[in-house]
Amino acid sequence: MLGKIISFEGIEGTGKSTQIQKLKTFLDTKNIDSVTIREPGNTYIGERIRYLLQYDSNVHNMCAETELLLFEASRAQLVREVILPMIHKNTWVICDRFFDSSMAYQGTARQLSEKIVCQLNHFAAGSCVPDLTILLDIDVDLALQRLQQRKIQKDRIENESIEFFKHVRERYLRLAKEESRFFTVDATLPVETITEKICTHVQKRFDL
Amino acid sequence: MLGKIISFEGIEGTGKSTQIQKLKTFLDTKNIDSVTIREPGNTYIGERIRYLLQYDSNVHNMCAETELLLFEASRAQLVREVILPMIHKNTWVICDRFFDSSMAYQGTARQLSEKIVCQLNHFAAGSCVPDLTILLDIDVDLALQRLQQRKIQKDRIENESIEFFKHVRERYLRLAKEESRFFTVDATLPVETITEKICTHVQKRFDL
Repeated sequence: MLGKIISFEGIEGTGKSTQIQKLKTFLDTKNIDSVTIREPGNTYIGERIRYLLQYDSNVHNMCAETELLLFEASRAQLVREVILPMIHKNTWVICDRFFDSSMAYQGTARQLSEKIVCQLNHFAAGSCVPDLTILLDIDVDLALQRLQQRKIQKDRIENESIEFFKHVRERYLRLAKEESRFFTVDATLPVETITEKICTHVQKRFDL
Repeated sequence: MLGKIISFEGIEGTGKSTQIQKLKTFLDTKNIDSVTIREPGNTYIGERIRYLLQYDSNVHNMCAETELLLFEASRAQLVREVILPMIHKNTWVICDRFFDSSMAYQGTARQLSEKIVCQLNHFAAGSCVPDLTILLDIDVDLALQRLQQRKIQKDRIENESIEFFKHVRERYLRLAKEESRFFTVDATLPVETITEKICTHVQKRFDL
């Protein structure tokens, strides 16, 4: 039996990391082996790409095409080095972002062709499609306020404009309507309520 | 008027770098501004990618998909940051490798789908197609002997098998038949003879 893939999506400041940890704890109580991973990154190659994409202070002029290709390169490596081996030994994989991020950020917000993003997602991820995608949805202004309070230094993409994140959010909401694997949760609810909603849904969806 | 793009292709050890310098010198005598560039690399982002692709000693397990996407990421940046601005100010660009390398190395030798390599080449290079591609062709065994004599440490791709380079060479020869922009030169000829053939062809092709 293959392990399941559960991805978390949403703009910055929605509390994805917190909920990912809480879902892992819930799966532990059900005796389900799971790992948490993040995109971009989580392999040696992916972490080098992550640094270049987000933190390298010499990178001011990365074009949108390069950005997409780097995210996809990190993804291709992650899928083959980590995700596939994990699910083949029946370990569940909880991803902090997966290919829907490329559609929302590089496709819609950076205005690249959705067709090419779709092709690249397919090329990089191969047969890996999340069994469930949890979208933490929040008003953009509120999310950026939260981010402001939480972090001292924002990364290159977190420094984008409010408009940019509004496009990302809209595309996520559209994806959630288009794809039955999505489960959308209001990220303004109390942390415990969000966790409860997610765990209840996971339990029901996978018959745990 | 736009500057021309001339790419050099061929397996390792064919003497591309030497001939590129000699072509630049020839263009100088014709009062044509030119720059020489190399793939992957030549931008800040591209050089970081080059290191990861070729020299990072922690990279043992890069999958073929990742390799292709990284080459294309470097190319996308190079086209938009260097090549397009250069040709728009009527400077000629002489490239040590361009997208034909991806077809021969990642498409044929790494056995990725030629269709996806073609789509990615188009996505990364946009409207940039070489006006002339010079293929330095040589027997694989001879090229690897030359490489052995010349270099102490080979990079990750130079360490591939003889079979790998045979596939690369075959695909290059096929490309040269398919595309009229190719000019193939026997790389076993004396250096000066090769230079003369290239310069004569350039002079004629571009009416200099």
